[in-house]
Amino acid sequence: MESYKRIKHRTFEIIQPDHEHDLASRAFDIVVIILIVINVIVVMIDTFELPDSVRRITNTIENISVIIFTVEYLLRVWTADELYPDTASITKSRLRYIFSFMALIDLLAILPFYLPMVFTVDLRVLRMLRIIRLFRVFKINRYTTALGTISKVFKAKAGELISSMSVVLLLMLISSVLMYNFEHEAQPDSFTNIFQSMWWSVATVTTIGYGDIYPVTVAGKILSTIIALLGIGLVAVPTGIISAGFTEIVHAERSEKQDEKSFCPYCGKKLL
Amino acid sequence: MESYKRIKHRTFEIIQPDHEHDLASRAFDIVVIILIVINVIVVMIDTFELPDSVRRITNTIENISVIIFTVEYLLRVWTADELYPDTASITKSRLRYIFSFMALIDLLAILPFYLPMVFTVDLRVLRMLRIIRLFRVFKINRYTTALGTISKVFKAKAGELISSMSVVLLLMLISSVLMYNFEHEAQPDSFTNIFQSMWWSVATVTTIGYGDIYPVTVAGKILSTIIALLGIGLVAVPTGIISAGFTEIVHAERSEKQDEKSFCPYCGKKLL
Amino acid sequence: MESYKRIKHRTFEIIQPDHEHDLASRAFDIVVIILIVINVIVVMIDTFELPDSVRRITNTIENISVIIFTVEYLLRVWTADELYPDTASITKSRLRYIFSFMALIDLLAILPFYLPMVFTVDLRVLRMLRIIRLFRVFKINRYTTALGTISKVFKAKAGELISSMSVVLLLMLISSVLMYNFEHEAQPDSFTNIFQSMWWSVATVTTIGYGDIYPVTVAGKILSTIIALLGIGLVAVPTGIISAGFTEIVHAERSEKQDEKSFCPYCGKKLL
Amino acid sequence: MESYKRIKHRTFEIIQPDHEHDLASRAFDIVVIILIVINVIVVMIDTFELPDSVRRITNTIENISVIIFTVEYLLRVWTADELYPDTASITKSRLRYIFSFMALIDLLAILPFYLPMVFTVDLRVLRMLRIIRLFRVFKINRYTTALGTISKVFKAKAGELISSMSVVLLLMLISSVLMYNFEHEAQPDSFTNIFQSMWWSVATVTTIGYGDIYPVTVAGKILSTIIALLGIGLVAVPTGIISAGFTEIVHAERSEKQDEKSFCPYCGKKLL
Repeated sequence: MESYKRIKHRTFEIIQPDHEHDLASRAFDIVVIILIVINVIVVMIDTFELPDSVRRITNTIENISVIIFTVEYLLRVWTADELYPDTASITKSRLRYIFSFMALIDLLAILPFYLPMVFTVDLRVLRMLRIIRLFRVFKINRYTTALGTISKVFKAKAGELISSMSVVLLLMLISSVLMYNFEHEAQPDSFTNIFQSMWWSVATVTTIGYGDIYPVTVAGKILSTIIALLGIGLVAVPTGIISAGFTEIVHAERSEKQDEKSFCPYCGKKLL
Repeated sequence: MESYKRIKHRTFEIIQPDHEHDLASRAFDIVVIILIVINVIVVMIDTFELPDSVRRITNTIENISVIIFTVEYLLRVWTADELYPDTASITKSRLRYIFSFMALIDLLAILPFYLPMVFTVDLRVLRMLRIIRLFRVFKINRYTTALGTISKVFKAKAGELISSMSVVLLLMLISSVLMYNFEHEAQPDSFTNIFQSMWWSVATVTTIGYGDIYPVTVAGKILSTIIALLGIGLVAVPTGIISAGFTEIVHAERSEKQDEKSFCPYCGKKLL
Repeated sequence: MESYKRIKHRTFEIIQPDHEHDLASRAFDIVVIILIVINVIVVMIDTFELPDSVRRITNTIENISVIIFTVEYLLRVWTADELYPDTASITKSRLRYIFSFMALIDLLAILPFYLPMVFTVDLRVLRMLRIIRLFRVFKINRYTTALGTISKVFKAKAGELISSMSVVLLLMLISSVLMYNFEHEAQPDSFTNIFQSMWWSVATVTTIGYGDIYPVTVAGKILSTIIALLGIGLVAVPTGIISAGFTEIVHAERSEKQDEKSFCPYCGKKLL
Repeated sequence: MESYKRIKHRTFEIIQPDHEHDLASRAFDIVVIILIVINVIVVMIDTFELPDSVRRITNTIENISVIIFTVEYLLRVWTADELYPDTASITKSRLRYIFSFMALIDLLAILPFYLPMVFTVDLRVLRMLRIIRLFRVFKINRYTTALGTISKVFKAKAGELISSMSVVLLLMLISSVLMYNFEHEAQPDSFTNIFQSMWWSVATVTTIGYGDIYPVTVAGKILSTIIALLGIGLVAVPTGIISAGFTEIVHAERSEKQDEKSFCPYCGKKLL
């Protein structure tokens, strides 16, 4: 029983990404990431016309990968109580893990492989979900701090960012309806319905401008001009918010440091 | 008389969006917003080719909505003196409300429905103005603070933003005239007149670049290059202004906090 | 002699834009600006096919405008010594004015009208230079302070802005040469020579992307990707510089204010 | 021996760009830069169809340039021990110089000229590498300080910039795979394989939008909308980072100044 627990704890240590100085854990991380990268490459290669010989190799790689990913998945479910030590029972912690976002992605990435054994559906398209596993790469690389800063800024400014994005979306919706009314008659094939009009507003507000759809009437062009100029202003807002967020964090860190080293050199008292 | 006043006050409380803890007011807000959203969806659906059965349903929804919106509008006019308690007479406060921006939008959104009863004109196109009512959504959601910060920044920087936009517009005007002279002969169909040329300058300065109109002469391409590079600089200005605005607000808040812990260098007493 | 001087001084006061409380000066400014705006509209209208009757009206407007602009120009030359009181002689100050940027623009805008009287050349195209006079508008409007702030930022950051722009231009030059080598063979009609290739790099770095020229080879697309991603980074630099410039100015102003109001409320001494 | 050393030291002084007040060094810099600019112009001219007479002139210019660049290169190798005074032996310092980035560029820019004498290969395409030498221009101009500030910001923020760029690249990869699956069937000619899909994602995330490839299915358009809106947010991040970097530098400089006027709240003495 004791040795069972010890093995489980050791397994948990190995499969968790945050033990950088543990050789076995590090090796496991690298193997998994290499496997993910290989799978992503296979998904990409599969979009080309391939001779049967190559197709056979990619299939073999996939089969081996799925087996390894399955073992990994089961190990993670097994050791879920180590991940959530606060949860009441082992079953609860396992369910909690199974329904976590990353675990669902992992399951969806391996499940399609087993389904044809039971049903006749082909959900192999889901295997490209494996690409999302690439985000795990960030967990073990040396840019963790920088990414942490970025996500801290996004969290601190979430309210402002969502608000400004809502205004942008509302503006896009209103301009789509207006543009449909301006252009539908002149270009019934381009501005067929409101969805086409929304597609135009996406291309305009984001300044992509593919050129597949654009206004030709004077009213439509004037609206487009207004939306484009407003777009610049509105797009400037998230930039301004994020920029202020980064400036803020830097200041917060500096003022913390200053607080620490603030002792009067004459009387020795701590300065506040 | 007393009970009339009480009913009016209660009605005002219910139809005003800023009583979040008042159940009736909250329910009213939610019903109105759901109705607006349904109407926006109807406006969008109407752009598709629909069978008569569906068209009948959307018409019914519209009729009911207009009746509810009319009642709401009349209630708001009725309780206008509660909204502007400082206004001299009830009539004045009602006129003040009727000619406020949001009330005019509301009126324009319901009026087209009643006009055909009197005249023969069909102004049903105006009902899409209802979409502007969506902005009311912001009044009752939890992002009010964030939106407040954003609009505070825009107000504080209005002068600088308008100035920089004026320079951009002037640059667009000048480049349009120049471009017309460069390209008119080479592409009489694209650069037909100054308006087409302005349309080009919008697509260029905002970096949309639909691709329906672009210079082909060497002079035109050089001008386009200059305008595009200047455009980057000029578009960077609003971003910089807004960014500084957000940084400023954060600092203003922090320096208020810091003021609480300052000391006089002469007598050592806590300042403020 | 004394009255000559007084008249000259009064004339100078009237034609200078910075006497807002002087009624005559204000009226003069408004008349000139209205005249400029009318002329800009005439320049714009002239790009359309017009019936002879309209053409005759626009011609009359032009003739009158040129006469007024000529008088204004001569008055400015006459009073140049008031504008530059430090200059040694009246002749020198007049020459200094004549060769100032705005005066040259003014001259170029009226000269084409008189040339056909002497030579047979038609330089009427130069009259669109009158549009540049629109910049004078900024001199007398209420956004002067805001524009002043913007130009102060640009001046303070000139070195950094020019440096970053030089890097962008160098990158565009290098990518043009590379792209020409990658694409010339595949698309000899699009990438005919280095100028076409430069035109592509303008559309790419500024993210306009008209769509008239783009790479089709794998090497060209990879280069385009690198340039586009670098472009985002490089375009972020001017924004960052300008943004920092605005933040800086705001801080400078605040810290000046704070310095002024910094008195200890207990001992009354000025805090530094 | 003494005079050999003196000549070498003097040569080093002349060929190094950072002796602005040394007339010989300054002249040398200007000659080299003029030569580089001429060579860049020649590379550009060579992309046009040229008559033999012009081609002969450009060839002569090239030959002379290569000889001068070769001499310059050899002088730099010879004086390498002056550049790296800390290196143990002269040979080591020379090897260190030869394998430095700029020296390799210099070598690659002159080598293709000598190769045809030995082999039959034509690597004259490499001579356009000479354009990279243009970056040397920055070493001797008056914007050195400004460029230094810019590169300081990039170095200080390298981690955050690379992290945010990695997220952008990952997002582009995932969206490419998804878009391929959405659009391949509808547009087999445009979305032939994953590389075409990646090309679309580059044009979309960077908001270039050439218009040669774009989604036509509803799923593809929705994905494109999400990517485009996320793109705005993600592109705002580098801008925000760089902007904060510039603000930070300015503050660091100012707070250094401010430290000079701080006082202890307990004893009132000047701090630091």
